[in-house]
Amino acid sequence: MKIKIGLFGAGTIGSGVIRIIREKYPDLEIVGVVDKFYKEKKDLLSGIPTSDDFAFLLDNPSVDVFVELMGGVEAPLYVAREALERKKTFITANKALLAKHGYALFEKAREKGVHIGYEAAVAGAIPIIHNLKYIFKNDTILSLQGILNGTSNYILTTMRKEHRDYREVLAEAQKLGLAEADPTLDINGMDAAHKLTILAALVTGQWFSVEQIPVTGIDHIELVDIQWAEKMGYRIRLVGKIERKNTGSAPEVLLSVEPILIGRKHFLWDIEMENNAILLQTEYSQSHMLVGKGAGSLPTAFSVVTDIINYGALDKFPGDNATASMNPVEETFTYGEIGSMESLENEFYLRLEVYDQPGVLAQIASILGNEGISIMTVHQEPEYKDKEKKIVDLVILTHRALRRSMNAALASIRKMEFVAGKSITLPIKET
Amino acid sequence: MKIKIGLFGAGTIGSGVIRIIREKYPDLEIVGVVDKFYKEKKDLLSGIPTSDDFAFLLDNPSVDVFVELMGGVEAPLYVAREALERKKTFITANKALLAKHGYALFEKAREKGVHIGYEAAVAGAIPIIHNLKYIFKNDTILSLQGILNGTSNYILTTMRKEHRDYREVLAEAQKLGLAEADPTLDINGMDAAHKLTILAALVTGQWFSVEQIPVTGIDHIELVDIQWAEKMGYRIRLVGKIERKNTGSAPEVLLSVEPILIGRKHFLWDIEMENNAILLQTEYSQSHMLVGKGAGSLPTAFSVVTDIINYGALDKFPGDNATASMNPVEETFTYGEIGSMESLENEFYLRLEVYDQPGVLAQIASILGNEGISIMTVHQEPEYKDKEKKIVDLVILTHRALRRSMNAALASIRKMEFVAGKSITLPIKET
Repeated sequence: MKIKIGLFGAGTIGSGVIRIIREKYPDLEIVGVVDKFYKEKKDLLSGIPTSDDFAFLLDNPSVDVFVELMGGVEAPLYVAREALERKKTFITANKALLAKHGYALFEKAREKGVHIGYEAAVAGAIPIIHNLKYIFKNDTILSLQGILNGTSNYILTTMRKEHRDYREVLAEAQKLGLAEADPTLDINGMDAAHKLTILAALVTGQWFSVEQIPVTGIDHIELVDIQWAEKMGYRIRLVGKIERKNTGSAPEVLLSVEPILIGRKHFLWDIEMENNAILLQTEYSQSHMLVGKGAGSLPTAFSVVTDIINYGALDKFPGDNATASMNPVEETFTYGEIGSMESLENEFYLRLEVYDQPGVLAQIASILGNEGISIMTVHQEPEYKDKEKKIVDLVILTHRALRRSMNAALASIRKMEFVAGKSITLPIKET
Repeated sequence: MKIKIGLFGAGTIGSGVIRIIREKYPDLEIVGVVDKFYKEKKDLLSGIPTSDDFAFLLDNPSVDVFVELMGGVEAPLYVAREALERKKTFITANKALLAKHGYALFEKAREKGVHIGYEAAVAGAIPIIHNLKYIFKNDTILSLQGILNGTSNYILTTMRKEHRDYREVLAEAQKLGLAEADPTLDINGMDAAHKLTILAALVTGQWFSVEQIPVTGIDHIELVDIQWAEKMGYRIRLVGKIERKNTGSAPEVLLSVEPILIGRKHFLWDIEMENNAILLQTEYSQSHMLVGKGAGSLPTAFSVVTDIINYGALDKFPGDNATASMNPVEETFTYGEIGSMESLENEFYLRLEVYDQPGVLAQIASILGNEGISIMTVHQEPEYKDKEKKIVDLVILTHRALRRSMNAALASIRKMEFVAGKSITLPIKET
């Protein structure tokens, strides 16, 4: 059973796919590679027909499986549509493509009776897509939370461990191939939001607009926040979350990507560096956690190869209807609305850069008090951030409060004259 | 697509299966239950035809899937053979059955072209069997280690957290349904060894004799060991391990079940109570960890239901050959030999109950030194274990040493007159 592969993109992940297939899979044959820079990759691509023209592969009728690992959105969308049009399996690691155009692409795949493989698009080597489709769908998933972006987790971990600055660590991550040349989507949380949209579709059967997810990245977090968190027994993680909330009549789905302070007993405490993790709470099996590499050439390529093996033959030799029902071509989704997080309650970490003058704390306490928020602890940095202007960091932990209240308090505080610069707030989760 | 189920055994797991199917799966129909005590379970079994006679179900031709949740080995073996003979899917949570008779049963299943589902037999709710068969088999697994027995992990955790005695905690676990009335196999490590045999077959393609696995349980571990470990920054876990070692020509497979001291950075550090965890090191995807409930009615029943769904329809409506190759009926196994652990190196924890007399430590140090083992630290309990006989606990941590050397040293030490009682040794793994 030979499966013939047309590969678009021989970059970090693509070269990993080529290597794994060469070393381990004589039955998988790469019949062609399209890459913009194919002329500069002679060693890697030796023995494989190459081109920079999409038609070169798309018009090769011997291809069973099209694999898209180019990055970007428009070109991959073209390849995806053309592949599905030809009733061929389409496999991609492209979360932005699926988050934006997944609804239409899955509809087309269903119509054409073929699979889209996208294991590599979410959480690198962790087989979360497969497990949601074939295992966890048999339970009722109450919530999912995950560290879904290896780059930002690498940055947060390294800042904490080595007491180093954000910019410096980011530059290092880029050198190590753990961050893209343009890391914007990793650090502003959008990459995690793309992945969350895909996971939410599998968990709820609903397709959510990625633009409507409340997303906070890690680009505003400073070394001082990480160090304050550590002193108080917390670590900062960028967490994507899906939660089903039964409010009155219809169940609401809450989606969010935000950095949170997690306590020592939280399951994500030990998920460090470029590792990803996904934690599920379910009705019957109670809890599951999957941990693995969220980035890197070979780990991500492994998920691509798994999809090629699991879907390639299935689409090439479709079984009868009954068997096909056990190997569902993509599900039908409906469009969903994201519920509001305003009525969620959390403890909060709050850091304010303020002018060191009498009465500041009293005024802050009064604003918080007016919103019904009570203070648990207050810390003031012993040293000035700016000696001349007498600016200090004030760090406050609050008791449980509504997000709505904290947002309102923060808006009031930001208008005060004593606020000299940043004011950041992060929710706290002990477990 | 209605799947008809014949259920043998309506105990802890069986009642969970009945509940999940009733609440969530109108397409799964339990057409009959065989249970020794069916007359005492009228509420649970209301509306379901019941009997205590195996033939009542085996001779019902409408059954698609036979589910065996009785426990024991001989009766389940009979049911398994009869089910496979009738070309019906056979699903079981019975690790002892598979560890002892798996080779022949899988051969029969292959011959008859049906599946054996055994997700619930290993690590409760964790879908490790499915993931090994459909995902991780695409990589090369270098090692697997796991906490495979929820009962013993519950006992070890509770002893540490509540400073309570082994017997007391075991009795509590039995009351909570986390330990069987006869917990022998849980605490002597054999239950974990049964599971390890099944995992090793999937990881290596070889079937190993469970009697040949070096197995140590937790029944000799005292509260004092757990407390010493904690003082020194360790926790004790009962770990099952599969390791592939390239020694010269042929790769050796090492299998073991033993309590080990793990360090703070070890991935199994936080796996507490009745949770199970499996940690894989692989060639391409590098590392995976799966965590979930290892015991309990609903979590284990969830795995049974998943097998019913995933294999029931597949066997009832077998697809064509090509599709079947993607859903392999059980693999062909060969018999394997277990390699020797004698040449492995570890740091060791060593606790000796000795008479408090001069020169004891010098003699121990000399025996260890003769075997090339050097001491890292020595602690002596400040209080006598037995005041009259002046017996104290001596706790020694060693530097890395061969297991062969430690075994030899221990044999010599045990012959010495100053040894008053127990002498136990546990390997240490920092990560």
